Amino acid sequence: MGKLFGDKEKISKTQCQSSLNSIADALFVLGGKWKLRIIVALTEGNKRFNELQRTIDGISAKVLSTELKDLELNGFIKRHVFTGSPVVVEYELTDYAGTLQNVLTSLSEWGAKHKEKIKKSIRMKEAMS
Amino acid sequence: MGKLFGDKEKISKTQCQSSLNSIADALFVLGGKWKLRIIVALTEGNKRFNELQRTIDGISAKVLSTELKDLELNGFIKRHVFTGSPVVVEYELTDYAGTLQNVLTSLSEWGAKHKEKIKKSIRMKEAMS
Repeated sequence: MGKLFGDKEKISKTQCQSSLNSIADALFVLGGKWKLRIIVALTEGNKRFNELQRTIDGISAKVLSTELKDLELNGFIKRHVFTGSPVVVEYELTDYAGTLQNVLTSLSEWGAKHKEKIKKSIRMKEAMS
Repeated sequence: MGKLFGDKEKISKTQCQSSLNSIADALFVLGGKWKLRIIVALTEGNKRFNELQRTIDGISAKVLSTELKDLELNGFIKRHVFTGSPVVVEYELTDYAGTLQNVLTSLSEWGAKHKEKIKKSIRMKEAMS
């Protein structure tokens, strides 16, 4: 566990195991290829099914539909049905989705750093060739 | 973007888009069902292929092998080959995997909170029935 939790910070084996379990719990709900992407897509504002499918590159209608049901069941999104003509169905993030703020911020910071690293290694390869 | 980045904190549309792009970059490398789980499994210490497969519930040998190659290519793990008899192959996290500390800590904290929420709602259902 050393590298990931800082070498100076000594933690007991039980604490370590409990962190690992919590990560597993989080990944159980958020894991997979699409869930966080759907949540991120909805942070820009409510979206209809077709808009979501267009925003999220490569997702099929069948998978999107399953994932949306899953996210609704777990309390991350609300489904609004407007019974005009045509019927409009919109998806909205719940307040509970807001509890993911730290997770998304840390992912975003890490993603930016990772991109820098990739860019640097491409530049180094180009300089060497 | 409001809910996820705090309503008081006003950010520009460009900043918002760049956060979303960074999250997409991070998920491109770390997304999918297994990568973070493999990294988490290796935080306990170096492991051999079979140990990894036993630790990570439900992963097939074929998928584990692909994922390990991917993680090695992206610089998260090192593969050590000990040419004794039998040959032993061990996987180790790199220092670069340590940059994921914040991501894993936030996931771990969120996972613990989510578990509490689920427990509470189960207790409420039991109390009502």
